Amino acid sequence: MSKFWSSIVTRTEPYIPGEQINDPSIIKLNTNENPYPPSDSVENAIKDELGGNLKRYPSPTVDSLRETIAENYHVGKESIFVGNGSDEILGFSFMAFFEPGKTIRFPNISYSFYPVYAKLFNIPFDEVNVNSDFSLDPSAFFESDGGVIFPNPNAPTGILLSLSAVESIIVQNRNQVVIIDEAYIDFARETAVPLVAKYPNLLVIQTTSKSRSLAGLRVGYAIGHPDLIEGLNRIKNSFNSYTLDRLAIVGANAALLDKSYYEAITRKIIQTREWISKELTQLGFHVLPSQANFVFASHKKVTAINLYTLLKQNGILVRHFNQEPIDNYLRITIGSNTEMKLFMERLKRILRKNTHL
Amino acid sequence: MSKFWSSIVTRTEPYIPGEQINDPSIIKLNTNENPYPPSDSVENAIKDELGGNLKRYPSPTVDSLRETIAENYHVGKESIFVGNGSDEILGFSFMAFFEPGKTIRFPNISYSFYPVYAKLFNIPFDEVNVNSDFSLDPSAFFESDGGVIFPNPNAPTGILLSLSAVESIIVQNRNQVVIIDEAYIDFARETAVPLVAKYPNLLVIQTTSKSRSLAGLRVGYAIGHPDLIEGLNRIKNSFNSYTLDRLAIVGANAALLDKSYYEAITRKIIQTREWISKELTQLGFHVLPSQANFVFASHKKVTAINLYTLLKQNGILVRHFNQEPIDNYLRITIGSNTEMKLFMERLKRILRKNTHL
Repeated sequence: MSKFWSSIVTRTEPYIPGEQINDPSIIKLNTNENPYPPSDSVENAIKDELGGNLKRYPSPTVDSLRETIAENYHVGKESIFVGNGSDEILGFSFMAFFEPGKTIRFPNISYSFYPVYAKLFNIPFDEVNVNSDFSLDPSAFFESDGGVIFPNPNAPTGILLSLSAVESIIVQNRNQVVIIDEAYIDFARETAVPLVAKYPNLLVIQTTSKSRSLAGLRVGYAIGHPDLIEGLNRIKNSFNSYTLDRLAIVGANAALLDKSYYEAITRKIIQTREWISKELTQLGFHVLPSQANFVFASHKKVTAINLYTLLKQNGILVRHFNQEPIDNYLRITIGSNTEMKLFMERLKRILRKNTHL
Repeated sequence: MSKFWSSIVTRTEPYIPGEQINDPSIIKLNTNENPYPPSDSVENAIKDELGGNLKRYPSPTVDSLRETIAENYHVGKESIFVGNGSDEILGFSFMAFFEPGKTIRFPNISYSFYPVYAKLFNIPFDEVNVNSDFSLDPSAFFESDGGVIFPNPNAPTGILLSLSAVESIIVQNRNQVVIIDEAYIDFARETAVPLVAKYPNLLVIQTTSKSRSLAGLRVGYAIGHPDLIEGLNRIKNSFNSYTLDRLAIVGANAALLDKSYYEAITRKIIQTREWISKELTQLGFHVLPSQANFVFASHKKVTAINLYTLLKQNGILVRHFNQEPIDNYLRITIGSNTEMKLFMERLKRILRKNTHL
């Protein structure tokens, strides 16, 4: 506490991201990064942009990248907003579309940054309980007072809500904005983007951090009706004229153009996920049906916090959330096949030792 | 206007940055960019960071870069905050240290983003009139209700307030935060950073966009008491865990380490500024005494808006602010010597034609 802090600082409860470690001997399965490198075209585009250009400000409107995204999703450029990671866009969206005093809704098991934004911007919220199987009940989000936000697939469960259920939530909130946080959608392939043309109250947010292997470059984007995009632009242009640097712009653009490379690595990750889900089930885990690049699993004998610690001692970092009712689950990012074979070997050894105690 | 916009969006009055044009035939003197490229070490550091690392999130605490800045300014790492350009840090600072309902002060002639932030975050403000010679009267900033912010050197005038005058403002606002926006300080070399050790209410903000030739990379930093830095961190970690991407971190770090290169180009720019100021005076301009990488000048016969248009027709872009009492001034960024020779040639031709009409 400091006498120089505003009332806003004192009411914040900052988000704590997963550990970023640089030890290459650790198998890092804790922050849902892509195990495969970005497309070669990304590095080439970045190298091309070097050479004197860095002294100039980037484009404040980022037209080149917005055009590429617009073409990918068959919408107009004026339906696209880009930001410094999808987190920045989420922050801007809370400011732009949610009103202090009007209660918004999101699931109680969800991206744990949502309550952080709500506290920062003084927006009251109801955390809607997920079902006992961790799925969402769409009707619980109908007719909200101030708007709705949820990840699809949900985090950290990986469970996908069907497109018809998503649509029902949008239809039943005609006068509020519904934000679908699709950070993991490429591993599920049932995006709500086609609904943008039908519903002016829908904003879909995606990121290049997961499926495009660009967590280190910080580029996210939002797709929605031009009125919503203009709302985001008014916030952004009241905050920071240039949120994306030159290298991030050309790198993300190159990634979004190289569809075949990314489709191939996405298929690999999905295959590994299905294999790992089966293996974990055989080892006595309850594994939620994931449509993301991670699995969420709970063992019937060894507690999640013990497993987290034992895995860490064996050079594997996964994510544990110390929060009921998910405190007995581990979120395990899908690594490369090689990493996941090592993971399974070490996990089996740990379980052999610890289930016979 | 859209029914989906929050009250925040509707009260914003977004900032309009200088035009970013990509036409290499235009001499671009409108956004205070450095005419010289970044140090070679910047490109090398960025190339080294490529090669698989982009798939991993950057460090959320950016320790490496903060350590370099701390060493440069002889303070502890816990006194350093880094952000996505100094604009982002200014935005966070308005949230962290200024209180809705408490009136802050800044000069009426100043960085035109300040009133934009104030409107975004609902902070009342008094615009303190500058003196008739555009200098600041320090006593007009004493005993503010909610805090003080001003650029030093001031923008767009380029006029420097002496360190003793700066200190008097800090001393006379012991219970409020005083923010010195030192975007251009390296062209003046009388930074307020040494005062940070004495005054817990002082925050100094700098950027790599101007003196480090890195406008395209978006890296700014703040230096202040650890309590102020913690306040900024609480806002940042409630908004975006990773505001700096991997390439920006290593690029800015390399730039801040290569002191001799940047001292040399800074000296060149200062020499060019002094030469241009003299030349413009001889041509009938009133030129304010600039300590920045631009000059602010008004001609006694040709209006600024006419000159702006005539220069643009002759392939030279400068900045004009359509705002009293500076609407008859042009802000001219100091380009390379070659660019400024061309600028002077074309300007002389324009004046010959237009002062004999």
